Amino acid sequence: MILTVTLNTALDITYRVSGLRPHTTHRVTDVLERPGGKGLNVARVLAALGHEVTATGFAGGVTGKVVQDQLTRVPGVVDALVPISGTTRRTVAVVDTRTGDTTQLNEPGPVVTPAEWNAFLEVYDGLLASASAVALCGSLPQGVPVGAYAGLVRAARAAGVPVLLDTSGEPLRRGVAARPDLITPNVDELAELTGSHDPLTAVRDARRRGARSIIASLGPEGLLALTPEGRWRATPPTRLHGNPTGAGDSTTAGLLSGLTHQLPWPERLSRALALSMATVLAPGAGEFDRGAYEEWVGRVVVRGEVNAA
Amino acid sequence: MILTVTLNTALDITYRVSGLRPHTTHRVTDVLERPGGKGLNVARVLAALGHEVTATGFAGGVTGKVVQDQLTRVPGVVDALVPISGTTRRTVAVVDTRTGDTTQLNEPGPVVTPAEWNAFLEVYDGLLASASAVALCGSLPQGVPVGAYAGLVRAARAAGVPVLLDTSGEPLRRGVAARPDLITPNVDELAELTGSHDPLTAVRDARRRGARSIIASLGPEGLLALTPEGRWRATPPTRLHGNPTGAGDSTTAGLLSGLTHQLPWPERLSRALALSMATVLAPGAGEFDRGAYEEWVGRVVVRGEVNAA
Repeated sequence: MILTVTLNTALDITYRVSGLRPHTTHRVTDVLERPGGKGLNVARVLAALGHEVTATGFAGGVTGKVVQDQLTRVPGVVDALVPISGTTRRTVAVVDTRTGDTTQLNEPGPVVTPAEWNAFLEVYDGLLASASAVALCGSLPQGVPVGAYAGLVRAARAAGVPVLLDTSGEPLRRGVAARPDLITPNVDELAELTGSHDPLTAVRDARRRGARSIIASLGPEGLLALTPEGRWRATPPTRLHGNPTGAGDSTTAGLLSGLTHQLPWPERLSRALALSMATVLAPGAGEFDRGAYEEWVGRVVVRGEVNAA
Repeated sequence: MILTVTLNTALDITYRVSGLRPHTTHRVTDVLERPGGKGLNVARVLAALGHEVTATGFAGGVTGKVVQDQLTRVPGVVDALVPISGTTRRTVAVVDTRTGDTTQLNEPGPVVTPAEWNAFLEVYDGLLASASAVALCGSLPQGVPVGAYAGLVRAARAAGVPVLLDTSGEPLRRGVAARPDLITPNVDELAELTGSHDPLTAVRDARRRGARSIIASLGPEGLLALTPEGRWRATPPTRLHGNPTGAGDSTTAGLLSGLTHQLPWPERLSRALALSMATVLAPGAGEFDRGAYEEWVGRVVVRGEVNAA
């Protein structure tokens, strides 16, 4: 199975309103609730692709229970979230149906205790034994040490499990130094990590810092890949307008899917980019338009060069 | 006990953010959750004044459970909410800590089935037997007939229980025709009911339509009372700035408290207005600043005349 780690899970709530005007009262026309946090989005996309996935991380309180109830209803996903005494955060996305724009309100979330963190580490080590790959995704909740991902990367490497790290800021900086197999930053995260706003320079710098492979998301320009096997650029077959929330998580899912199927890099990149685009057409993160995905996966243009053996 | 009816209960969530800007992402600095819906606010204020209160209405789903869990922790309040298969709505108040302004997002709420409505009517009739007064508060959920309050008013009158009606629009229009003992509209609700924007004209019209007594809230100008015993005007001792959410519910609670203590009208009005002002100083609806209340209750100016016997 593929293991996804979401330390800062969320209950993602989407409200649709006709015209958001601050300091007035709005009737919400439509309410959508989904398990949230990057790793749970990755898990749902992987499961929809037919993979067996186990999702771990933390869940607590009433919202944590809703997240777990919804997660267990997704075929192919095994819930291995570790209970905490705090309450899982909510995120509220207010979609203005007149403009299509989204206003986001993110709760601060719970504080994880040292005992809960130790309980997670034990669960994580146990799950690694049967994992074909592991994805470490998203921000860290309060109480979890900032070097947490570095430790989780090292444990995965010690267990011989390929490890993907998708986070930002100091947790990314420290995690990269522990030599993950793959990181999937966007251009902002890459610039913050390396100090360079030139993607080509920045991915090279990220490799020197410890990442074995880097797949950088260039937004509507596609993906830039620097790996030990070569370097590639994947370009979208078309331009899209829509809600990009979760597109990056679908990129991560596509890369993990390609990794476990041992596809060559260009095919992994096509899968990742097509999934990310098909998510822009879907109602929310963790979902994708299957017809669009199947149409686009063969139409992504991947150009690059294989390194000399 | 005093019975409060809240057919459209809610879980009221308050988010504090530093500067609300549409189409951007906000970190919520503070999250507050409270049982909501006008009748539950009235119940909490009455309980804080030392009354025994029973709260009925509807509750369902995860949010309904949170509402009930919180309600049972309020000393003096007995939870008699009737279960429904739908999920109790949430309301989200986003307070901009820079300006103090509030942006409100109200979920549509559940649909009540005919069987659930009948179950409520049975519970209501049973509770009337031991009620010293009943307050019918707030909007109607989907599925409840628009004439619902008229029926509840008639049932209370048949049981000899004084009945207060605090709603708006068509449910108010129909409810008033069933001759409630007291209505507590604000100037907008009164104008909608009577077609008159002059409060004095409007309260007289409301009496002709069936309300025995009318206590109209004039906002910062205080209260206007027209009753069989006389008419009065209650004026605040000071001007306040703050969040007026729930001020009207505290007015209702003050009037019910004075009714069950059989106070003369001027004292009921002082209590109601001082409570309403003390709620403006509190974090939210259903709460009040006790020190401010105790200071102000003796300083409200009530002028008027008693009718000739």
